[in-house]
Amino acid sequence: MKNTIGKNVAITVFGESHGDMIGCVLDGVCAGVSIDMEFMLKQLDKRKPQGSISTARKESDMPKIVSGVFEGKTTGTPITILMENQDQKSKDYSSLKDIARPSHADYVANIKYHGYQDYRGGGHFSGRLTAPIVAAGAVALQLLQQKGISIGTHILQLYNVFDDAFSSNAEELKHEIDKVNTMYFAVLNEYIGQKMEETIELARLQQDSVGGVLESAIVGLPSGIGEPFFDSLESVISHYLFSIGGIKGIEFGSGFSFANMYGSSANDAFRYEHGNVVTTTNHNGGINGGISNGMPILVKTVVKPTPSIAKEQETINMQTLENTTVAITGRHDPAIIHRARVVQDSLLALALVDMLTEVYGTSWWMPCMD
Amino acid sequence: MKNTIGKNVAITVFGESHGDMIGCVLDGVCAGVSIDMEFMLKQLDKRKPQGSISTARKESDMPKIVSGVFEGKTTGTPITILMENQDQKSKDYSSLKDIARPSHADYVANIKYHGYQDYRGGGHFSGRLTAPIVAAGAVALQLLQQKGISIGTHILQLYNVFDDAFSSNAEELKHEIDKVNTMYFAVLNEYIGQKMEETIELARLQQDSVGGVLESAIVGLPSGIGEPFFDSLESVISHYLFSIGGIKGIEFGSGFSFANMYGSSANDAFRYEHGNVVTTTNHNGGINGGISNGMPILVKTVVKPTPSIAKEQETINMQTLENTTVAITGRHDPAIIHRARVVQDSLLALALVDMLTEVYGTSWWMPCMD
Amino acid sequence: MKNTIGKNVAITVFGESHGDMIGCVLDGVCAGVSIDMEFMLKQLDKRKPQGSISTARKESDMPKIVSGVFEGKTTGTPITILMENQDQKSKDYSSLKDIARPSHADYVANIKYHGYQDYRGGGHFSGRLTAPIVAAGAVALQLLQQKGISIGTHILQLYNVFDDAFSSNAEELKHEIDKVNTMYFAVLNEYIGQKMEETIELARLQQDSVGGVLESAIVGLPSGIGEPFFDSLESVISHYLFSIGGIKGIEFGSGFSFANMYGSSANDAFRYEHGNVVTTTNHNGGINGGISNGMPILVKTVVKPTPSIAKEQETINMQTLENTTVAITGRHDPAIIHRARVVQDSLLALALVDMLTEVYGTSWWMPCMD
Amino acid sequence: MKNTIGKNVAITVFGESHGDMIGCVLDGVCAGVSIDMEFMLKQLDKRKPQGSISTARKESDMPKIVSGVFEGKTTGTPITILMENQDQKSKDYSSLKDIARPSHADYVANIKYHGYQDYRGGGHFSGRLTAPIVAAGAVALQLLQQKGISIGTHILQLYNVFDDAFSSNAEELKHEIDKVNTMYFAVLNEYIGQKMEETIELARLQQDSVGGVLESAIVGLPSGIGEPFFDSLESVISHYLFSIGGIKGIEFGSGFSFANMYGSSANDAFRYEHGNVVTTTNHNGGINGGISNGMPILVKTVVKPTPSIAKEQETINMQTLENTTVAITGRHDPAIIHRARVVQDSLLALALVDMLTEVYGTSWWMPCMD
Repeated sequence: MKNTIGKNVAITVFGESHGDMIGCVLDGVCAGVSIDMEFMLKQLDKRKPQGSISTARKESDMPKIVSGVFEGKTTGTPITILMENQDQKSKDYSSLKDIARPSHADYVANIKYHGYQDYRGGGHFSGRLTAPIVAAGAVALQLLQQKGISIGTHILQLYNVFDDAFSSNAEELKHEIDKVNTMYFAVLNEYIGQKMEETIELARLQQDSVGGVLESAIVGLPSGIGEPFFDSLESVISHYLFSIGGIKGIEFGSGFSFANMYGSSANDAFRYEHGNVVTTTNHNGGINGGISNGMPILVKTVVKPTPSIAKEQETINMQTLENTTVAITGRHDPAIIHRARVVQDSLLALALVDMLTEVYGTSWWMPCMD
Repeated sequence: MKNTIGKNVAITVFGESHGDMIGCVLDGVCAGVSIDMEFMLKQLDKRKPQGSISTARKESDMPKIVSGVFEGKTTGTPITILMENQDQKSKDYSSLKDIARPSHADYVANIKYHGYQDYRGGGHFSGRLTAPIVAAGAVALQLLQQKGISIGTHILQLYNVFDDAFSSNAEELKHEIDKVNTMYFAVLNEYIGQKMEETIELARLQQDSVGGVLESAIVGLPSGIGEPFFDSLESVISHYLFSIGGIKGIEFGSGFSFANMYGSSANDAFRYEHGNVVTTTNHNGGINGGISNGMPILVKTVVKPTPSIAKEQETINMQTLENTTVAITGRHDPAIIHRARVVQDSLLALALVDMLTEVYGTSWWMPCMD
Repeated sequence: MKNTIGKNVAITVFGESHGDMIGCVLDGVCAGVSIDMEFMLKQLDKRKPQGSISTARKESDMPKIVSGVFEGKTTGTPITILMENQDQKSKDYSSLKDIARPSHADYVANIKYHGYQDYRGGGHFSGRLTAPIVAAGAVALQLLQQKGISIGTHILQLYNVFDDAFSSNAEELKHEIDKVNTMYFAVLNEYIGQKMEETIELARLQQDSVGGVLESAIVGLPSGIGEPFFDSLESVISHYLFSIGGIKGIEFGSGFSFANMYGSSANDAFRYEHGNVVTTTNHNGGINGGISNGMPILVKTVVKPTPSIAKEQETINMQTLENTTVAITGRHDPAIIHRARVVQDSLLALALVDMLTEVYGTSWWMPCMD
Repeated sequence: MKNTIGKNVAITVFGESHGDMIGCVLDGVCAGVSIDMEFMLKQLDKRKPQGSISTARKESDMPKIVSGVFEGKTTGTPITILMENQDQKSKDYSSLKDIARPSHADYVANIKYHGYQDYRGGGHFSGRLTAPIVAAGAVALQLLQQKGISIGTHILQLYNVFDDAFSSNAEELKHEIDKVNTMYFAVLNEYIGQKMEETIELARLQQDSVGGVLESAIVGLPSGIGEPFFDSLESVISHYLFSIGGIKGIEFGSGFSFANMYGSSANDAFRYEHGNVVTTTNHNGGINGGISNGMPILVKTVVKPTPSIAKEQETINMQTLENTTVAITGRHDPAIIHRARVVQDSLLALALVDMLTEVYGTSWWMPCMD
């Protein structure tokens, strides 16, 4: 469905980097939820560039909710969130109109839209469109919170620097999630975090960029969520997450490490523990047969290095049909992984809210139904 | 949509391992296509167990097309493919009814369906349901073939044995695709293939199992396919592929290796070459901004080791609520990756046919429209 | 979605009149429902031709459930129902291959499918495909029954003969629904029913056919069902019902009579009565703003006269591109409205089950959740 | 999908009557279309209240396109159209907060959204939300125009006053469509139009309201459009049109008159005429078996009398749970049918664009593809 995803709770995203506005419509949220605007702004802050590790572009990202909320509470009808584009500096891009920036969408957009796309700043393909997703995700996260479901994401790897992995102990994991959710540069080991920031700074100085790996954990998700075939939790979650521009890989639980394991090591043994069913390991990342088994859901994604770099690169001029070079001189991020983190949390939340609604219905979420 | 996927060309899958029949409905295929039954059977053969590296279970998998084909050609209305379950040996499973096989769907199915699921042989979660997908995929592959689009998959890694990667040279890649498409145990380097088979055999002798990594390549896909946000090629392809039971990770192009790269190495430079636009490297696996750029699409998936192993494992009895052990003594595969390969080809084909139809319409495929 | 409809509970229909099999896949039904096969067969009997008012074609319509039911109960996974085509007499139709029967789908199918459609007996467009819908509808009706929701339909008008309308008294209406649900030729006034049968017989003797109007009522539907804009109850119900071949009009409540009314007569006043909210009239057929208000849902549809008539008609030969005439000499119904009745009940049930699931979730239906 | 409809070309609607903004997102329109803003404004004018036959409320309805259009042309990405709510006079409604206006959505919204809905002026259920639909419809109508497809609607009946029906002559019909498309109060016979306006005025003076019947015709639609089962043209068109608040019935071609006809009169004979296939009559309204046959598509809908009337009516107070009365004293329309006309045109256009895209693809519409 192109720019809409979700069956019972759906999000539609629109806008271009240098157009008038970007925004989204979030449809299917139950009525009566007090929107926590402070939380929404905090979430948006996590996506904002900060310090020298990010672009100097100042985006206000101030969300304006123009429908679906009345007297501070959701009405049950579509929630529309708008954000004005203020610090556009469109002139930065006019010289790039015909130049296909390597690994950006410029070339494919030019093919797909026959030259009619808004080319300024990546247009509809700009990472800027993740801002409304974060705003909508804040609503989804609030819904999940209310049902005891938490999501947290940290930077597991940045170039050649590695953070500790999430704990396999349930209690500790909860604390770790709470901790990273308060951080801008989300890592478990803050010393490692510093090393990572230095690595980004180093890339910036070299007119270059770096990527990394995000690790997310979801705790509190009831077992039985996900559908047997085409709507396996893995299918749905990956569908949502691959809409983030820079993500090029995803794995659940042990993921690609499964390739090196024997079945006897890879299998997660079930056990009754204090009346609950647990698995003694969690190689499958909380998902069996596409359905949640009550253990933490574990997801990793790889975020490629930001394609916008100041270094000169070979490319083509789409107008003159000639080979040329480009050095992208605008304000750009030497890394976006720390900013992509909250987008990942947001899309995970939106995916889960939709999946849960299929099983429990819209009415399940109603605060007054508690 | 649970057991249905696709917008303009959709597949619906049904059945249980030990029920009467499994099958699928493929809706939206244009009229007038001569179904190549020989090709369909060949594809199904690739999914069949063969030799000691596979289960001894004999499945006929004979597809019976009961609708949508008339006088050998598609009619434009739903194509229904049925397969009878013959070699069921249901007694094999009755003793396992209450035992949750580790890393199988038994436990989650029991939760989700409150004990009413058909537990025999994994029921609806059985890998057996991929047989109708392969049959439907054969039709999709035929459509793509007609438009000059080829798909091929090989076993890149099996436990600790590694095949050569697909060539970065377009011509060579085409030959490699053609080659692997004729093989049962699909590898580029046949000596390596032998090593892999030995590795599987070794696992079997140890009452254990192994997994690996599949690498797929798609050549000939026009540029401009894929949609900007939620229906990026990566989103749609991963949605389809994660419906294969054992797949726990996916990556496009350089995938998780991007984490270790600088942007200047990761970016794919564009170049005009003999009037065509190419990229000098293909780290992005033929996809920029979620849309095909005309280069080969490169996808890797990880297939976890088969969870059914003869070794004793700890688990629970869901009826008595007690901890227990299980040794799965039926006929099982020490590896399924070589059989999963054709399922991956099939799902890739189904995904692409749907995506292409969105841009070009149902009528584009009509043979008489050529 | 062509041959699939429904979001959380979906039905996919397939087959051709003279192919091997027709059938359907019903996906999303909760686990644990004891399928009442006797009820399903009774429903199918209502669709069967009986006596001289129907075609002499004998269709066994014996439903074979090949997936989704285990030990008599639904498993929660797709329910597949197959019916073999036995009494096909394909030769009846070969002479008609190139003749476009007036008001049939022959001509449009020939255009849409470029001559590749299965032309025998209407192929995929045959009314025969409503048989699996009735079988699936029986499951949906069972679910609704369990929640205290009843549906009944009678022939309100047949050519120039008019039955009594459903009662506006809730208790009486319930009895009327129960009554018509036991009948083959469903009318409230049996004397009128006899007149109608005579009218059909008269049409048959004149080598002609007749149509009429069906009136359906739904009682027990909770208020709050239906979605504000594009999934209004009217939108969804009409989408389902217009898939019945002969239906060319639909109205809710007073329907087209609203055109002749003043607002003061058309509005339904609300009133508290014994603690419940009722409306003193029900011109809106239980639907305000697209959402159920707790009053009976009232729907009328018009079924056009059967297009297959023995009388000679002008038409074209699609092969020779010449004008010609046709007299349809096969076994045909002089009226199908009495057989369409149960199809309408079935589609209404399928529509409601999907709409209710959106609000209450799949789990709401589980028998063990009561 | 609640507030989103369409598969390849989709519209999402949002907003409340007295919220900040209403609007819509139109996704899937091809790139390169010069948006004719003058035409869009003309279409919006047709929806605006004018003279004493409409409400005195002044709505600016000025559409602001904030995404998807760049340098006057569509970009291929989502088109977002916003309209500010200016003349809100929210105080008018505060006294009505707990009063369920008869035949309005107040009561069902209160049930469905547990009292959290925006009750002012009908909130999300307000007819005001049809304004963005008209703006989006203008884009769809432009696309159809470019392909030679025209849509026109006139008031066939207003209370007891009847306009001439659309001509059965193709050439004349085209002229009639062109004619009504220039009118605010769309009728074929202007003398009749005057009578209708007098009838509305009379209703207004009596503090009452009237409804009527709209007749639409579509010419130039290629044959073969529509899908066999659940996406019949009738199913899809009715799904779209029943999202208009006041519409309670729809019929295609002869519609409910089929009930009174014999098959021999109801059938439309095919004939070759100047190399084209036509039908000698058009009782089926251009649709056989759910698929267009090349003849004009004929649709009629009934618009019920406006429920907001100044006359005192019986109703309930939802807060005190008491019976009470209400006289709706705000600014209201004694008839909305003349304003609903352009909404019907718009929804028909959106439905057709989506159906055509399924067959011909997004690329078919590209201006540069001509």
